[in-house]
Order: sequence, then C-alpha cells, then structure tokens
Amino acid sequence: MNLALEEAWRYQGLTYPNPAVGCVVVGSNFELLAIEAHHQAGKPHAEVMALQSAYFKLTQDKNILKLQKSSDIHEYLILNHNNRFEGVSLYSTLEPCSHIGKTPSCATLISKLNIKKVFVGSLDTNKIASNGNEILSLNGVDIKSGVLKDECDKLLYPFQKFNSDRFVFFKWAQRLNGSSDDGIVSSTNSRINVHQMRDVCDLLVVGGNTVRVDRPTLDARLVGGKAPDILIYSREKEFDKTIPLFKVEGRKVFIENNLNRLESYKNIMIEGGLNMFKLTKDVVDYHLCYVAPTFGGSNYFQNVKERFEILNLKKVDKDIIIWMKREENAK
Amino acid sequence: MNLALEEAWRYQGLTYPNPAVGCVVVGSNFELLAIEAHHQAGKPHAEVMALQSAYFKLTQDKNILKLQKSSDIHEYLILNHNNRFEGVSLYSTLEPCSHIGKTPSCATLISKLNIKKVFVGSLDTNKIASNGNEILSLNGVDIKSGVLKDECDKLLYPFQKFNSDRFVFFKWAQRLNGSSDDGIVSSTNSRINVHQMRDVCDLLVVGGNTVRVDRPTLDARLVGGKAPDILIYSREKEFDKTIPLFKVEGRKVFIENNLNRLESYKNIMIEGGLNMFKLTKDVVDYHLCYVAPTFGGSNYFQNVKERFEILNLKKVDKDIIIWMKREENAK
Repeated sequence: MNLALEEAWRYQGLTYPNPAVGCVVVGSNFELLAIEAHHQAGKPHAEVMALQSAYFKLTQDKNILKLQKSSDIHEYLILNHNNRFEGVSLYSTLEPCSHIGKTPSCATLISKLNIKKVFVGSLDTNKIASNGNEILSLNGVDIKSGVLKDECDKLLYPFQKFNSDRFVFFKWAQRLNGSSDDGIVSSTNSRINVHQMRDVCDLLVVGGNTVRVDRPTLDARLVGGKAPDILIYSREKEFDKTIPLFKVEGRKVFIENNLNRLESYKNIMIEGGLNMFKLTKDVVDYHLCYVAPTFGGSNYFQNVKERFEILNLKKVDKDIIIWMKREENAK
Repeated sequence: MNLALEEAWRYQGLTYPNPAVGCVVVGSNFELLAIEAHHQAGKPHAEVMALQSAYFKLTQDKNILKLQKSSDIHEYLILNHNNRFEGVSLYSTLEPCSHIGKTPSCATLISKLNIKKVFVGSLDTNKIASNGNEILSLNGVDIKSGVLKDECDKLLYPFQKFNSDRFVFFKWAQRLNGSSDDGIVSSTNSRINVHQMRDVCDLLVVGGNTVRVDRPTLDARLVGGKAPDILIYSREKEFDKTIPLFKVEGRKVFIENNLNRLESYKNIMIEGGLNMFKLTKDVVDYHLCYVAPTFGGSNYFQNVKERFEILNLKKVDKDIIIWMKREENAK
C-alpha cells in the first residue's frame, strides 16, 4: 500500500475532478506485478492501469500495452484473462469504483477477473462511485478495508474537499536557503509540473505586487493546457493591461481585495510569497513547496512562525517537491 | 537495487570505518524476501542481514532472528539452509566482501548457500576485502556487476574517501524558510541521528562564534556514544573554559585558524552556519542538511550562491534529511 501511495502522490493536483489513487498488484507468490496510479481525468483509473501492467507481466502479451482507452483495456482483459489473475492480490488506496462513467466500473472488472483478495485504504464517499466494496463482496472477493487508512485519507482529502465545497492549495517555489527572488528558482521539470496543475485548476490567485513586478502570463503553455481564471488580490485596482496575463484568451481576470471569489470555484491554486501566505493561510487546505537545492537570492519568509506536517516528499528531477498541511496546533 | 540503495542511505555516516551498503534478496518467483543494510561497524554486513531476513521469510524459523553476531548467523545459515535459497537472487550495492575479519566473508556465505544469481553495484577497491566477485565466480555464481553503478558509487564514495585520505562532510540544520536561529530547529530524531554520527566521527569542526554564543557540549550523549575531538576554527584563541565542550573527558580540543588539523583525521564532520560553509566548502566532500518543516527564526544563508546535486532525500520522523554534493560546475 505504501508503494501505491507513493505512486499516487506523483499525480496529486493533476487528477481533478477525479481523486489521486494508486494501485499495486501482487502475484500469487508475492511478486510485484504492477505499481500504477490514476494520471488524469478521462484516462484509466489506477486499478485499470495496474491490471493492464500486471496482465502484461503475467502473459508477455504486448497487445494490451497498445490499448489506451479504459473501455478497451477492460474489454481486452475480460476476454483474455484466462484465469491468469488467480491468486493475485490488489491493493488500492481507494475503494474501487462502482460507477460506469467515462470508464466502466473497476469493481466489476476486478470481480470478472476472478481476483479474490483486495486491500483497500480509504472508503469512497462519493455517492455516484461508492459501493465498490459491496460489488466485490457480492462476487466473493475477500476485502480488507482501512489499510494505511490515515495515509490514504490524506491522499484522498483534496477530492473530498472539492466535492464538498472547494480545495485550496498554496504553492510556492524557493531555494534551499529559503529565497525565491533573483531569477528562475525551479528546474524545468518542476515548472512543467506547475503548468500541469494550472491546466486543471479553475482559479489561480496571485498578489497584486507579483503581477506588477513579475508581469507574468500564468498560463499552462509548457504543457499546452488551458489557462485558469485569475484572481489578483490587490487593494489597488489599476494594472497595466499589457501585462501578459490579461491577454490570455478565454480567461476571466478579477481584481479584488478579498477572497469571496473563491466560493465560485472548486479547485484553486494560490501562488505567492510571504504576504499571500499570511493573507490566505486560513482558507488553504494543503501547501505545496518546490525546493531547488541551491543558495542565492535575498528575500525570505520572514517574521512568520508556522509548523507543517509533511504529507509527501519527493525528489523530482533536480528539485524537492513537498506536500504539507499546517499542523493543527501550530503556534 | 533502488531499494537496496534507499535502505543503505539511512545509515550513511554511521558505518565508519565500514562502507554504507544495502542488500535486497528476491525469491525464485520475484517475491521480495529482504531489504537490509549494514548498520554499524562490528554488526553484520548488509548481505548477512538480508540473508537472515530472507531465511526467516522462507522458513518461518524464528531461531535465526535471535542471532545477532554475524558469525552465528553465518554458521546457522550454512547448517540449516537446506537448499532453500535455490532460485534466489541477491542485489548488493557493493561487491560482497572476501575478507574474513570481524565477520566471515560474505562471498563465501553466498556461495555456500547455493545462490546462483548476484547483482552488484560498485566494485570493492579496498585491498583487504575485494575479490568477492572472483570467489563467487569460482563457485559458479552468475554475477552482473555495475547495476546502477553511478548511484552505488555515490553511496560508496565516503568509504573510498576515508580510505584514501579523509572524508569531510558539512552538516547543518535549518527550517524550511532557511533560518537556523531562535531555539532548537530539528526534531528529536534528527538530533539523535546527529549524535550517532558524532559517535563515529573522529573530528568535529565548529566555528568560534558558535562556541561562544551557543556554549555547546558537542558530544554524543543522546546515544551514549563517544565524543569526537574538536577543532574550533577561530582567530581569537581565548575561550571561557567553563563552556561544556571543554569539560568532556578523553577528548582533545584544538583552537586554530586554519584547517591543517584535518590532515590527521579520517572521518570529519563540520557543523556550522554560513561562515563555516564558506570557509570550508573547498575541503568538503558531501553536505548534509536537516530541514524542519517549519517557519521561524531570522538568520539565513545570505549573499552566497551555490548549486547542489541531491544524492539522497528522506523524511525521517518529522524532518527532511538531504545528502548533497556541490555541483561540479557551480557558479
């Protein structure tokens, strides 16, 4: 389950409006057959990705690797599994879905492949997709729920949050010595990752000062993605409209000195420095920090005390990516 | 091999005068039987630890888990293996030793257990313990060397360095926002980890200002370990001798304004802030940073530019531990 969690966190923030989910398939001799995750809405669920990889490992049948559409993979597996999944166990950070939407139900697929052992982290509280465990049970699958439940729940939390009202995360990039000024801080890969997140965010919040000084575009051009709407948090309403962010088509730009606008959105990224951090910390669910292993610059998060809990930590390319939340009893 | 590397880095800095080594044992059906590492000089080598765990997983024979001495584990495995290791593969970040010292040779043990597949990362250039691969080959073991060689070589580098002249690492603790003043920065576990390293260091280098301001003890009391000798790097030779570090028995304290003293030592930790970083960076092999996921404090690594390559990144307890080296082409 730890492997499933690690893999899923790589796609946290990118799967909206779907949850980040990881799945591991283990063979009858406890050999590892697949570690996969859900990458993006419209693409196969984690279970389907993992069953595809596991099927290839068990059969060496390359035809399955050519399939990309979830429905095609479902169909191929059901037609060709030949009981090769006998004795196989499946670990999923989230209860397999019962929902037939863009993709057929994972719970049904698992049942049809005669997989008899499923380990589940979090239960699915989404009304449309839940009851996967029930389908599995009715088909004689032995389910163990609540495996690493706390960790799986923290992975799932953004999904629950944007389903109930909205998920807000605060993103910043810094050097190891804490600075974020004086040129580009992050590696190209980290910046691509941020553009992928912008592509699925519906609102991006930035401070007025950042807009004036950096003159940013704030789109998702590095991944050819859509540009989110922008809320510029600023008292001063006058901005030079030649700043690139105003010229991106199909986007709304709001200039306001409060956060009420957030109520109309579901998946919200705040990008900023110390001032924005202070102004927004009470509405932020998760914090996301990109740390470049460098020294330089001269501005810092000064005169502020805070304690975070690290939810996930990864080295991606040259940088460190940390998902965190403020500690409940932060002083 | 990646799993072996990850496990081994947990003990980097603690195995002196031995190398940090990790070992993974995989069963005949590719099931994971053991992930272990060498913990400390005098304790079993990584291969012995891993074969002990794997034997238990294969046999459920609890008697082997009671054994702690390497020679006892060797003997027990050779007497009781019963060809249970047939079809098993072993991955080691370093060529298994041929040296019969505090522990019998790992290469001989592997051969006697009839393990026929061994994957090796780095070759052992230590004259006394090398040629393990030769012993394995002579016994009909199929060896693949150079697996993840670069990564294994970076893990092994401190060992090669203190064998050729000396290994010097610079350690500091900071908060996420880059500060290190205003009270204790790191979690208890990180501080225990530092004390474990002091226990195996033969020289600890600190700045005069740190000594005057912090009045430290700089021993290994959290782990009941020995206190290393101290070099206080300072122009001013007068110190208040009631500062605790001067009162630790069996330690030498030098007060000097150059680094010549390093030449008499093998495993050297430098603890300090920005000034010490600047003064010593050209003699430092690896950098070790403990990052607490907090904001606070008010001093920073300012007016300095540097780029590091991350060698290993881990969350340990609440903190982040990063092993790094300066990038060759750092500006």
